[in-house]
Amino acid sequence: MADTISPRVAAPAETPEKGTVMLTLPLPYLLFLGDCTEQGYAKTAYGLRDWANEKCVGEYVLPAGSVSTGLPPMNPAEAAVAGARSMIIGVANPGGFIPDSWMVALQEALEAGLDLISGMHSRLSDYPELKALADRLGRRLIDVRVPPKKLPVGTGRPRSGKRILTVGTDCALGKKYTALALARDIADRGIACDFRATGQTGIMIAGEGIPIDAVVSDFLAGAAEVLSPDADAEHWDVVEGQGALFHPAYSGVSLGLLHGSQPDVIVVCHDPSRDGVLGVPGYALPGLQETIDLTLTLARRTNPNARCAGISVNTSRLTEEEAENYMKQESEALGMPVADPIRGGAKFSALVDSCLNG
Amino acid sequence: MADTISPRVAAPAETPEKGTVMLTLPLPYLLFLGDCTEQGYAKTAYGLRDWANEKCVGEYVLPAGSVSTGLPPMNPAEAAVAGARSMIIGVANPGGFIPDSWMVALQEALEAGLDLISGMHSRLSDYPELKALADRLGRRLIDVRVPPKKLPVGTGRPRSGKRILTVGTDCALGKKYTALALARDIADRGIACDFRATGQTGIMIAGEGIPIDAVVSDFLAGAAEVLSPDADAEHWDVVEGQGALFHPAYSGVSLGLLHGSQPDVIVVCHDPSRDGVLGVPGYALPGLQETIDLTLTLARRTNPNARCAGISVNTSRLTEEEAENYMKQESEALGMPVADPIRGGAKFSALVDSCLNG
Repeated sequence: MADTISPRVAAPAETPEKGTVMLTLPLPYLLFLGDCTEQGYAKTAYGLRDWANEKCVGEYVLPAGSVSTGLPPMNPAEAAVAGARSMIIGVANPGGFIPDSWMVALQEALEAGLDLISGMHSRLSDYPELKALADRLGRRLIDVRVPPKKLPVGTGRPRSGKRILTVGTDCALGKKYTALALARDIADRGIACDFRATGQTGIMIAGEGIPIDAVVSDFLAGAAEVLSPDADAEHWDVVEGQGALFHPAYSGVSLGLLHGSQPDVIVVCHDPSRDGVLGVPGYALPGLQETIDLTLTLARRTNPNARCAGISVNTSRLTEEEAENYMKQESEALGMPVADPIRGGAKFSALVDSCLNG
Repeated sequence: MADTISPRVAAPAETPEKGTVMLTLPLPYLLFLGDCTEQGYAKTAYGLRDWANEKCVGEYVLPAGSVSTGLPPMNPAEAAVAGARSMIIGVANPGGFIPDSWMVALQEALEAGLDLISGMHSRLSDYPELKALADRLGRRLIDVRVPPKKLPVGTGRPRSGKRILTVGTDCALGKKYTALALARDIADRGIACDFRATGQTGIMIAGEGIPIDAVVSDFLAGAAEVLSPDADAEHWDVVEGQGALFHPAYSGVSLGLLHGSQPDVIVVCHDPSRDGVLGVPGYALPGLQETIDLTLTLARRTNPNARCAGISVNTSRLTEEEAENYMKQESEALGMPVADPIRGGAKFSALVDSCLNG
C-alpha cells in the first residue's frame, strides 16, 4: 500500500549554504520612481523610505514624474559614486509591466554599474534589451517574486533562538506592517532581533528573504525553516506572515509557513472594518478567538510551547474614540493586549511586552 | 497598513479550459520495464497493470530485463500498430535518472510515433538526444512531475457534484490506494465516479491529473479546484490525498488540497504499525480522532457539510487476527467503519456505504 515510487521523506538534516537558498539583494539602493504622478502607485518607495531608509542612498525621478520620497535626488551615475549597488523599482505600474518610458533609465542604471531589482509581475529578464545589456555588462536582474533555487524540504528539527510570526484573519490587513513595527520596537529596546521577509516588499525592505507564496508547495516548510535559521538563545526573529489559515485560496501557504517557522509567539492581525474575505464573495472573516485557537493547535505540532501574545488591529477606518473602545473591549474579551501599530502608544508597548515576556 | 503592492485577491470566477490546466496523457500506453530485474523497482508498472489495465496495450522488456507484468510483450512499432499513443516508463531507477541502457529503446518509441511519459526525478527534456529527436519528430516528452501552466488561484466557489478526499496521519500509507479502491467500488455499484489524481503514479493510472506538490504555493487551492470541476449532482469525485495536516514538511500541500477539493466526505488513512512520522525523527503520529477533528474543522471552511465516513487502515504488517481485532476495536471507539482496502470484504463495503450514504 506504500507509494509506488519512493516515499516522500524529509531530506537528512543539513545546513544549506546561505545565499544559495535565501534571496539576497545588493545594498544600498537607488530608489527609482520613474514618471509616477500618483502617490498610490509609490507605496513600495514610501515603505522603503520609512523602513529601510539606511539602505537607500537617494531617489531617481524622471522629468515627467512628480512623486518624491524626499530622499536626495540623483541619477544612477551619481548614486554609484555615493555607493549604491542597485537601482530598485519603487513604483507599481497598472498591469505590472515595465513601460517604455522607463527603459532608458533602467539601461542607464546598468551602464552605471548598478544591478536592477523589481517586484513587478513581469520579469526584468523577459525584456530582451535589459537581458542583453545586463549579460554584456555582468549586471544582475533580480526579480524578488522569483524564489531561490535549491530550497530543501522541511525537517521539523527544533531550532535555537526565539520566533514571532504574524498571522491574520485575512490577507492584506497588516501582517507585514505589524512584523516591521514589532521588530523595530524590540530592537529599540536593545534586544537582538531580525525582521524575516516573506513577500516582495518585505524582502526589499529587509534586503533579503524568500517570496514564500512563489515557492513550490513541497518546499514551503523547508523555505520557512531556511528563512529563520538557528540563532542565539535570546535572539528574536519576527517573521512576516502570508495568507490566512481560513483563506480558501491561500491557507496552504499560511500552514507551511506556520509549521516551518516554529513560532514561540503568534500575533493575530485583524481589520475590524472588513466585512468578509477580501475578493472572495461568500466568505465571512473568522473570529479572533477562533483564529487564535486554530493557529495554536496547528503551531504546536512543530513548537509545543507556541502561544498568542495579542492582537494587532488596523483601525484606520475608525475614529480615535471608536478605535480605543474597540481595542479595550477586545482586550478584555480575549484577555490579551490589542493594539494598532500605526497608533502605537502604551497599547502597542504592552503587545511588545507580551511577545517578549509571555 | 495595506500591502504596498496590490493585495492578493482571488481572480474572478472563470472556467479554465480543460487541457490548459490539467495534465492529460496520451492513451493507451505501452508499458516500459527496461532492463529491470528487481520487482521492487516496478511498482508503477504493477500499479498500471492493476488499476489501468484497459489503458495498457502491452509491455516492453529489454533483453537484459527479467521483470514482467504479464501484459502482452511487444516493441514500440508493434504497440503503435496495436493503437498505443505513448510509451510510459513503469520502473524506477536508483537516483531517479534515465540510464544509458534505456536510451535506444526510448528513441525507438519516439521513432515509432509514440510520445514518452515519465514520472522520474530527472526530466526527459533534460536529455539532449531525446529532446532533439522529439522536436524533430513532433513527439511529446511528458514529465508527470511537472504541473500544468496557467493554474488559477482558488475562488472558494462551491461546486456541484460530490467529493471524497483521502487524508492521512502521515505520508505514504495508502491515500492513493484507498482512493482507487473507493472509486472502483463506487463505480462497480453503477454510480458515476472519477478518481482524481494528485501524484505521479495516480496521474499515470488516471491518464490525467495535477501533481499537487509541484504546484507553486499560491495556486494550491486553485489547482485542487480545477482537478475536481463542477459535475452532475449525483456524481462522485474521489480525490487522491497528499501529505498530512500534521506533517512538519508537507502540511501546506494537504491544507491547500483540502480547501480546494471542498470534500463532502473525508476518509482518514492510517498505518497502525507505524511508530512515528516517516523520515522525520521526533514526530509521533497524531491520533485518529485528533486527525478527524482537525481535518473537519479545516474542511468546513469551504464545505460546511464535510463529514468523516471512516478510516482506511494499512494492516499489511498485522496478522489476519490482529487486523480484525484492531479494526473492530477502532470502529467501536470512533463509531464509524474501519477497513483495510487490501483485505476488502464486508468492512470495506461498509466504508463505501458510509461514504455514499452518510
